[in-house]
Amino acid sequence: RYGMIEEEDQIGTATGLAYTAAGGDTLSIEVSIVPGKGRLSLTGKLGDVMKESAQAALSYIRSRAEQLEIDPAFHQKHDIHIHVPEGATPKDGPSAGITMATALISSLTNRPVKKEVGMTGEITLRGRVLPIGGLKEKTLSAHRAGLRTIIIPKDNEQDLDEIPESVKASLAFIAVSHLDQVLEHALVGEKHESNQIRHND
Amino acid sequence: RYGMIEEEDQIGTATGLAYTAAGGDTLSIEVSIVPGKGRLSLTGKLGDVMKESAQAALSYIRSRAEQLEIDPAFHQKHDIHIHVPEGATPKDGPSAGITMATALISSLTNRPVKKEVGMTGEITLRGRVLPIGGLKEKTLSAHRAGLRTIIIPKDNEQDLDEIPESVKASLAFIAVSHLDQVLEHALVGEKHESNQIRHND
Amino acid sequence: RYGMIEEEDQIGTATGLAYTAAGGDTLSIEVSIVPGKGRLSLTGKLGDVMKESAQAALSYIRSRAEQLEIDPAFHQKHDIHIHVPEGATPKDGPSAGITMATALISSLTNRPVKKEVGMTGEITLRGRVLPIGGLKEKTLSAHRAGLRTIIIPKDNEQDLDEIPESVKASLAFIAVSHLDQVLEHALVGEKHESNQIRHND
Amino acid sequence: RYGMIEEEDQIGTATGLAYTAAGGDTLSIEVSIVPGKGRLSLTGKLGDVMKESAQAALSYIRSRAEQLEIDPAFHQKHDIHIHVPEGATPKDGPSAGITMATALISSLTNRPVKKEVGMTGEITLRGRVLPIGGLKEKTLSAHRAGLRTIIIPKDNEQDLDEIPESVKASLAFIAVSHLDQVLEHALVGEKHESNQIRHND
Amino acid sequence: RYGMIEEEDQIGTATGLAYTAAGGDTLSIEVSIVPGKGRLSLTGKLGDVMKESAQAALSYIRSRAEQLEIDPAFHQKHDIHIHVPEGATPKDGPSAGITMATALISSLTNRPVKKEVGMTGEITLRGRVLPIGGLKEKTLSAHRAGLRTIIIPKDNEQDLDEIPESVKASLAFIAVSHLDQVLEHALVGEKHESNQIRHND
Amino acid sequence: RYGMIEEEDQIGTATGLAYTAAGGDTLSIEVSIVPGKGRLSLTGKLGDVMKESAQAALSYIRSRAEQLEIDPAFHQKHDIHIHVPEGATPKDGPSAGITMATALISSLTNRPVKKEVGMTGEITLRGRVLPIGGLKEKTLSAHRAGLRTIIIPKDNEQDLDEIPESVKASLAFIAVSHLDQVLEHALVGEKHESNQIRHND
Ligand SMILES: [Ca+2]
Ligand SMILES: [Ca+2]
Ligand SMILES: [Ca+2]
Ligand SMILES: [Ca+2]
Ligand SMILES: [Ca+2]
Ligand SMILES: [Ca+2]
Ligand SMILES: [Ca+2]
Ligand SMILES: [Ca+2]
Ligand SMILES: [Ca+2]
Ligand SMILES: [Ca+2]
Ligand SMILES: [Ca+2]
Ligand SMILES: [Ca+2]
Repeated sequence: RYGMIEEEDQIGTATGLAYTAAGGDTLSIEVSIVPGKGRLSLTGKLGDVMKESAQAALSYIRSRAEQLEIDPAFHQKHDIHIHVPEGATPKDGPSAGITMATALISSLTNRPVKKEVGMTGEITLRGRVLPIGGLKEKTLSAHRAGLRTIIIPKDNEQDLDEIPESVKASLAFIAVSHLDQVLEHALVGEKHESNQIRHND
Repeated sequence: RYGMIEEEDQIGTATGLAYTAAGGDTLSIEVSIVPGKGRLSLTGKLGDVMKESAQAALSYIRSRAEQLEIDPAFHQKHDIHIHVPEGATPKDGPSAGITMATALISSLTNRPVKKEVGMTGEITLRGRVLPIGGLKEKTLSAHRAGLRTIIIPKDNEQDLDEIPESVKASLAFIAVSHLDQVLEHALVGEKHESNQIRHND
Repeated sequence: RYGMIEEEDQIGTATGLAYTAAGGDTLSIEVSIVPGKGRLSLTGKLGDVMKESAQAALSYIRSRAEQLEIDPAFHQKHDIHIHVPEGATPKDGPSAGITMATALISSLTNRPVKKEVGMTGEITLRGRVLPIGGLKEKTLSAHRAGLRTIIIPKDNEQDLDEIPESVKASLAFIAVSHLDQVLEHALVGEKHESNQIRHND
Repeated sequence: RYGMIEEEDQIGTATGLAYTAAGGDTLSIEVSIVPGKGRLSLTGKLGDVMKESAQAALSYIRSRAEQLEIDPAFHQKHDIHIHVPEGATPKDGPSAGITMATALISSLTNRPVKKEVGMTGEITLRGRVLPIGGLKEKTLSAHRAGLRTIIIPKDNEQDLDEIPESVKASLAFIAVSHLDQVLEHALVGEKHESNQIRHND
Repeated sequence: RYGMIEEEDQIGTATGLAYTAAGGDTLSIEVSIVPGKGRLSLTGKLGDVMKESAQAALSYIRSRAEQLEIDPAFHQKHDIHIHVPEGATPKDGPSAGITMATALISSLTNRPVKKEVGMTGEITLRGRVLPIGGLKEKTLSAHRAGLRTIIIPKDNEQDLDEIPESVKASLAFIAVSHLDQVLEHALVGEKHESNQIRHND
Repeated sequence: RYGMIEEEDQIGTATGLAYTAAGGDTLSIEVSIVPGKGRLSLTGKLGDVMKESAQAALSYIRSRAEQLEIDPAFHQKHDIHIHVPEGATPKDGPSAGITMATALISSLTNRPVKKEVGMTGEITLRGRVLPIGGLKEKTLSAHRAGLRTIIIPKDNEQDLDEIPESVKASLAFIAVSHLDQVLEHALVGEKHESNQIRHND
């Protein structure tokens, strides 16, 4: 069913975690990049903050094109569409920043995103990962959706205390402070460094 | 009369199903693609969600141009107009997504849409078909309009229980999870696979 | 006086019929097409639905340029202005669709519109003519303005019963389902087919 | 003082008559046309109807460029600015249509506007002059400003009855139905035809 | 301190006088003109009327480029930024018109504005200077800021009666009806004509 | 943690000081400049005044490109993105003007900003630094964040009296009236002049 973990690793699609009045939810961030004239489309009933978050993710990527092995002129020669399905549901906030960055880089480098990974965190123009709200609710929804690994901001590490042991037992948490670390753990074909945290305390 | 089944299969026109406070209704989605400069027009008093749905349908098609045997540069060399008649009636929601995609592809490939087919379902940038609301009311309006086959999202299959037997007896339902399946059953000149469901239980 | 039948057949001007809280009224739809860059101007305090109706009329014409013997690239090489005088009076609704299409085609083909013809009907991207409201009030205003022939949508034929015999005696009604039929009866220099209806019942 | 008759005939400036809650007033319509890229600026706290009126005036001129001995491509090679001073006073309505057309044509043809002429009337894309409201108040303000000749729409002729004899004795009224007649009487260097009306009844 | 008279004559900066609910104030109008593509930026929390006033000032200058010894194509080859500091304070009204024109011409001709001159007056497309409100409050604020000469519209001359003798004793007033007169008195390097008025009555 | 002093001097990032209903806060201003077409993006839920402040900073830099040893055409050949993290927090006011200018110049000249410097002050098109509000709250937040040097507007010097001695003992204050002074003290590799003020009174 839609909203559950994908059947295989996908290129250009990453799983975020949302926190609303109705609780937590998973968000599928879809990116499509096709030959075009440099237009950016942002759809899925996104609020202004979430749209600005997408712009920040894109600017970060453009400023790091060389290191990411992306054509620095990709922006001018393509149209980029970022869509968040369930188009009737309003979505907002900066916490999908790293998810949008990951889906964009996946699409630009043709590297799939691991299907069992979910993530949440604000991104800055320098690639820093800032803390977010609602970690508990987000984690519960990730668990329900069948995800196995959750990438969270380093500054949210202390919030893990509030999460039930039963949930923590089946999820791996990775705390990051920079997008580089997100990419290492979320994209297929990149060696993992060992800042993975298993919470069995 | 307008609102009843067409007299012959049409290119660039597909039949969707709407659900409003006043009950269900059929929607004719019309597409016109003419030489131009890449402008997209969306008319018929469409709400923001429905307009974003059209953008998602178009981006999906652009990302799959090669497989669909469409010129990948069609977008830049043409103006595209999607219109939903009864221009005074407000329309919104994501459930016309697959209908807009079907009408666009029909117009771009010159393959007619079967006149007796109606459809409802949200589309994503990957071509996935997501569930919709109001299936019962939509089905009743399809029946009144004289349609014979209804394409619905796989995730709505369980909602078929609520539909009266008398209606189900004269309608075939096809449950789909991807736009490829929609096109197989809705466009003329494509072999049908056998995931058609007749509800006589 | 303005609002009464024109003194001679005009190119680029057609007479529509409006229905407002204050009753029926005739509307003069004026079109001006001059060398330019493809800009469309819509003025006369037009509401969104009426503006979308103009776009639908224009897209229909572009998709049928060859059959109408119009340069398919006219849109790019000209600026098009559609104006509805009495600029302080708000106007809206889709029922001027066929009138705008007729005025546009008259201007593009240099064929005058017959001065004694009025018309009302929504237009679709396929050239279909959809039913409208307020036929009685519209007919009375057409009569007051001195018109002799009224083109109406086929689906409004039953509404002719409500119109006073005294009015019907001096007006010819033509019921149509497609814009081709409108053009045959409204433009000068085209043979009439015999679907004219005289209401003397 | 500003608001009184000009000291000499001006190119690109014409005098209109406004009617507001506070009574009648004269309006100076200023036009500036300079080499540019085809941009139209409309300033002076103008309402939407007045802005559309300016567009109608401009489209009329473009459609008649040849007869007016104006370069048909003037629009693309210049920027046009129409300004109505006393920039803090809101202005609206279609009745400055013929004044804006006159100021534009004066500027484009380098023919001055006669300084003692005021005018009021809506313009259509065909150059027709439509009736306006507030003729009495407008006439009184024209008289106060020192104007000698007032151009009015033919369909407002009957409203001259309401104007005090003392005012009519010092003003000449010219009733017109087309912009051609406005230009004959308002621009310097064009022979007058004798449809001037002196009201001494 | 900011808000006091400048230490030396500046190019591209002129001092206007504002009148708000809180009394009079001086306004520094800053202009920056750099190589660009013809974009006009207006910042400093300016209301619509003040923005239109800037456009009028600019159009006047473009129409008089030759007489002002300015490259007639300056507009297309530069970006122009007009900023009014104290960016958090809302500003509106047409009375900064001549100040903006003066700052623009100073910047375009590299002639400094005299640091001890303040000014207030609406500008028209013809360079006429129209009367403004709040002259008394504006004059008091000019006095407080250390200005020595105030340029006012000719039509405001009678308002000088309301100004205290102590203030008038230390300020020179110059009444003008056209921008040419403003430039003569405000820009460095231009001979003064003798319509300066000293109020010692 | 985010919000604390950076670990090393950064290029394109400067620290501002904000004052809100909830007290003072530090703001990280991030600038990204990449090859592009001259587009300026301003994100981080910035209000209109703060956006205009960014435009003023950019125009100042463009007008001084030569002195700053920046390619005068940088604006046309790059896209510039200014982002202020914590994207969900609304930010407004002109006091980040000098911080945005500093971050822009750092990015354009590849000179890092000293990590221990914070700053606050409105900027004008001439590079003047205007006074701001909330100096006490801003200073306390700078102290909490671990900053060592605070650049303030000259016109705010008297407000230093309100700041607790314990805070002043660990912070150096530099009072400036022009952006040149800001750059001297904030950018690495520029000799300091001695207008630094230590408040131990
Ligand atoms: Ca969901
Ligand atoms: Ca690493
Ligand atoms: Ca219907
Ligand atoms: Ca298949
Ligand atoms: Ca009427
Ligand atoms: Ca026929
Ligand atoms: Ca007046
Ligand atoms: Ca004549
Ligand atoms: Ca001030
Ligand atoms: Ca002089
Ligand atoms: Ca903070
Ligand atoms: Ca220095």
